[in-house]
Amino acid sequence: MESCPLGLFGWGTVGGGVIDVLARDGALIASRCGLAVHIKAIVTRTPSRVRSQGAGTAVVGTDPRLILEDPAIRIVLLMVGGTIEARDLCLAAIASGKHVVTANKALLAVHGDELFAKAFARGVGIAFEAAVAGGIPVIAALRDGLVANRIEAIYAILNGTCNFILSTMEHEGLGYQEALAQAQRLGYAEADPTMDTDGSDTAHKLALLARIAFNARIPLNRVRIEGIQRIGFLDIRSAHTMGARIKLLAVARQRADGLELRVAPTLVPLDHPLADVHKNYNGIYMVGDAAGPTLLVGQGAGPLPTASAVLADVVDVASGRYQQTARRFTFFQGGSEPTYLGESEEHTGSYARFVVPDRAGILAGITQVLSEHGVSVLSIHQGEPAAGRAMIEIVTHPLRGGAFLSAIEHIDRTGLTMEPTVCLRRL
Amino acid sequence: MESCPLGLFGWGTVGGGVIDVLARDGALIASRCGLAVHIKAIVTRTPSRVRSQGAGTAVVGTDPRLILEDPAIRIVLLMVGGTIEARDLCLAAIASGKHVVTANKALLAVHGDELFAKAFARGVGIAFEAAVAGGIPVIAALRDGLVANRIEAIYAILNGTCNFILSTMEHEGLGYQEALAQAQRLGYAEADPTMDTDGSDTAHKLALLARIAFNARIPLNRVRIEGIQRIGFLDIRSAHTMGARIKLLAVARQRADGLELRVAPTLVPLDHPLADVHKNYNGIYMVGDAAGPTLLVGQGAGPLPTASAVLADVVDVASGRYQQTARRFTFFQGGSEPTYLGESEEHTGSYARFVVPDRAGILAGITQVLSEHGVSVLSIHQGEPAAGRAMIEIVTHPLRGGAFLSAIEHIDRTGLTMEPTVCLRRL
Repeated sequence: MESCPLGLFGWGTVGGGVIDVLARDGALIASRCGLAVHIKAIVTRTPSRVRSQGAGTAVVGTDPRLILEDPAIRIVLLMVGGTIEARDLCLAAIASGKHVVTANKALLAVHGDELFAKAFARGVGIAFEAAVAGGIPVIAALRDGLVANRIEAIYAILNGTCNFILSTMEHEGLGYQEALAQAQRLGYAEADPTMDTDGSDTAHKLALLARIAFNARIPLNRVRIEGIQRIGFLDIRSAHTMGARIKLLAVARQRADGLELRVAPTLVPLDHPLADVHKNYNGIYMVGDAAGPTLLVGQGAGPLPTASAVLADVVDVASGRYQQTARRFTFFQGGSEPTYLGESEEHTGSYARFVVPDRAGILAGITQVLSEHGVSVLSIHQGEPAAGRAMIEIVTHPLRGGAFLSAIEHIDRTGLTMEPTVCLRRL
Repeated sequence: MESCPLGLFGWGTVGGGVIDVLARDGALIASRCGLAVHIKAIVTRTPSRVRSQGAGTAVVGTDPRLILEDPAIRIVLLMVGGTIEARDLCLAAIASGKHVVTANKALLAVHGDELFAKAFARGVGIAFEAAVAGGIPVIAALRDGLVANRIEAIYAILNGTCNFILSTMEHEGLGYQEALAQAQRLGYAEADPTMDTDGSDTAHKLALLARIAFNARIPLNRVRIEGIQRIGFLDIRSAHTMGARIKLLAVARQRADGLELRVAPTLVPLDHPLADVHKNYNGIYMVGDAAGPTLLVGQGAGPLPTASAVLADVVDVASGRYQQTARRFTFFQGGSEPTYLGESEEHTGSYARFVVPDRAGILAGITQVLSEHGVSVLSIHQGEPAAGRAMIEIVTHPLRGGAFLSAIEHIDRTGLTMEPTVCLRRL
C-alpha cells in the first residue's frame, strides 16, 4: 500500500465532497489500486468552519506554505473558484513541483496557456477531469479513448443549471424566472446564477474540450456565447410543436473552411439523444471519424460527482500515468492555430420568432425581406392574433448565418416587428 | 517523434480497420502525442491475401517469430479469434516480453486469470478496450473514471447484432428470422450468429466489466445466460403495450446478499435511456455511489470503431501509462471472491406470457397458482381468443426469482398452458 497524501486548497462543496467520498470509499480505492489516498492538509480562509465540519486527521490552516512546503504532499487539490487567487495558488503549487488537480474550468479556459506551459517546464501535470461535466469522464474519453479519431463535431449540454431550468420550464409549464427560482430552492442554481445562465460557464468547458479535440489554443473570445435568459415558455412550447426541445448547446464543429465554436440555445430534434438529457444532467455527443458518434450522459455537477472526477485524477497522477499524459499530449502546449468561423460564416438551420402587429401586409413584408436575403424557408407558422399582436415563426433550411442575421436585422429595423426577434439555431 | 512499431497477429476486419485508421489519421495521432504508430509485421495464415489488400510497408508472413523475435516490436495486436490459437499467441507474446492489445473478449473472459497473471509476472500489460463495446471507451471509464465509486449496478446492451435484430423487429414489424436475415445482409450478423444471439458474446463482455467493477474473478459459469432466439414479434408488441422495449441486457448488480450477474432479454421501460439505444449501437448504464448514473452510447462493433479502441490502447501502452495500470490495478490479479446470486435468489419484476386453451377456468387456475407461490401480480391482460387459443400476459411486482420460476413451472406442468411459457425480466 502506497500512501498518497493530498493538500487541499479551498473549502467548498467539492472539497467537502472529496472528504465524504474518501470516508466512504477510500478503502475501496486502496483495494483497487493500492493507493491510500487521504487529505493531509487543508488551507482555507475559514479554518474554524472546516474543523467544525470535520476534516479527519488533516492539518487545517490559512497559510499556503502548510501545503507548498510539505515535501510529502505531491498532489494539490485546487478547489478555489475564480481566476485570480486560483491562478496564484496554481502557479505556487507548480513552482513547488507539485501536481495540480482542479475543477476550476474558468481558470484553465482563461489562463490555460500560461499554466500548462509552466507545469510542463516544471515537469508536473495539471489534471482537470472535474472541470468539465463533473462525474462524466469526458476529458479522458476525448483525449485518450478517441485519440485515434479526427473529431468532426462536439455537441454538448455542459451546464446542469441551465438544463434544469429548461427542463423544468417544459415539464411544469413554468416561465424562466419561476424555473430559476425552483432551481435555486433545490440547490441547482447559485444565488447569482449569471455565470451559468449567460453561457459563460458552458463556454469555459467548451474551450477545454475543443482544445483537446482540435489540438489547438482556444482563446475564449473565439467562442460566441448566448445564454438562456431570454427564453420564455412560449419558446419551449414552439419548440415542441416543431418536434424539438431547446437546449443550451455547446457546439464545436470542424468545417472545411474553419472551426465553428459557439454556445447558444438550440433546437434539438426530439429524436436526437441530447434531447433526452433532462434535469440537471449533462450530455456530450462527440463524432469521431473512426468511432462514429459517442454519447456520454451523467451528473455534471454536485459535490459527489465532482469528487468522483477529482479522485479519478488523483489516482491517475499518483499512479504515474498522468505525468506521461502531461509530457506527451501537445494540446497542453498549444498545437495548431485553426481558422475560426464567425457567426456570419456558419451554415446552420435557424429559427426566428417575430412578434408583429395584427395588420395586413406584415407576413408579405417579412417573407419579402427573407427572400431578398436568400433565406430559404423550411416551414412557417402564424398564430391567431391577440390584443393586436400576432406571432410568426419560421424555420429555415441550413444557410449562411450572415444572410439570416442581416435579414432579421432588416426586418426588425423596418418596423415589421414589435419587439426584437428571438432567434435560435437548429442542431 | 517516437517510433511505435506494432506486430499484428491475424488479418481480419479489425486488423484491416487498424491499417485504415492509421493511413487516415496516423499523422493526427503523431501530432497529438508524438507517437509514430505503424504496423511493422503481420503474421497471418493468408499472407498473399494481405499483400493483395495492401499492408503498406509491413513485413507479412506466417511465422509468429517474425513478430516475437523482433526486438523493435514492443506491442503486439492480437486480432485472432477463438480461445485456443489466441491463447497460445498471447502466452508467446507475454513470454517474449511484449505488451498485448486485443479485442478478443472470449479469450479474456475464459483465460483472463491465467493470462493476466502471466503478464503481471513478466511485467507487461494486456490491454483490452476494444474487447467490450467497440469504439466506446467503457473499460477506461469504468476502471479509471469511476475508480472512486462503489459500483452499484451495470445495465448494458453489449451486442450490436442482437440490438439490431430487436430494433428491426420493432421498427419494421418483422419476425426473428426475417430480422436476422436482414442483419446478415447488412453485415451486422455473421453467417453463424449463434455466439451473438445466444447471449454468450454479451456474457464474455459482462464478465470483463464485472471483473473491473467488483474487483473480482468472474468465472463465466456464474453468469446466467439467455439469448434472444425465442423472442417473436408478439413479444415485441406486448412489450410496447406495457410501455417497454425488449433489449438483450447484461446486468451486474451488487445486492446486500450477493452479486447478481445475468444476460437475458429484458423489458426496459421506454423512459429509461437504454430503451433509446437503437440498431447496432451499444449502451452501458453504470451506477456509482459518487458519480451517480453514467450512460455511454456508441458503436459497439465494426472495423473502424474497434480500431479506434485498439489504437487508444496502443497509445496508452506506448506512452508508458498502461504499464502503471497493469501493475497497480488488482482486478488483473483477482481481487475479492464475491457471493453470487442465483436466479432463484434474485429480486426483480418479471413478465410471463401464457398461451392457454380457450376454456373456462384457465385464468382462475393460473392466478390461483401464482397466489399460492406468493407471486404478486402488478398487471394482467388477456387477449381475445383465436383458433381455440388465448394469450394471458402478467407483469409482477419485484419478487424472489425462485417463487416466480416455480409458479411458472407449476402452471406449465399442470396443463394450464399449451406451450412453454415465455418469461422476461423487467429492468
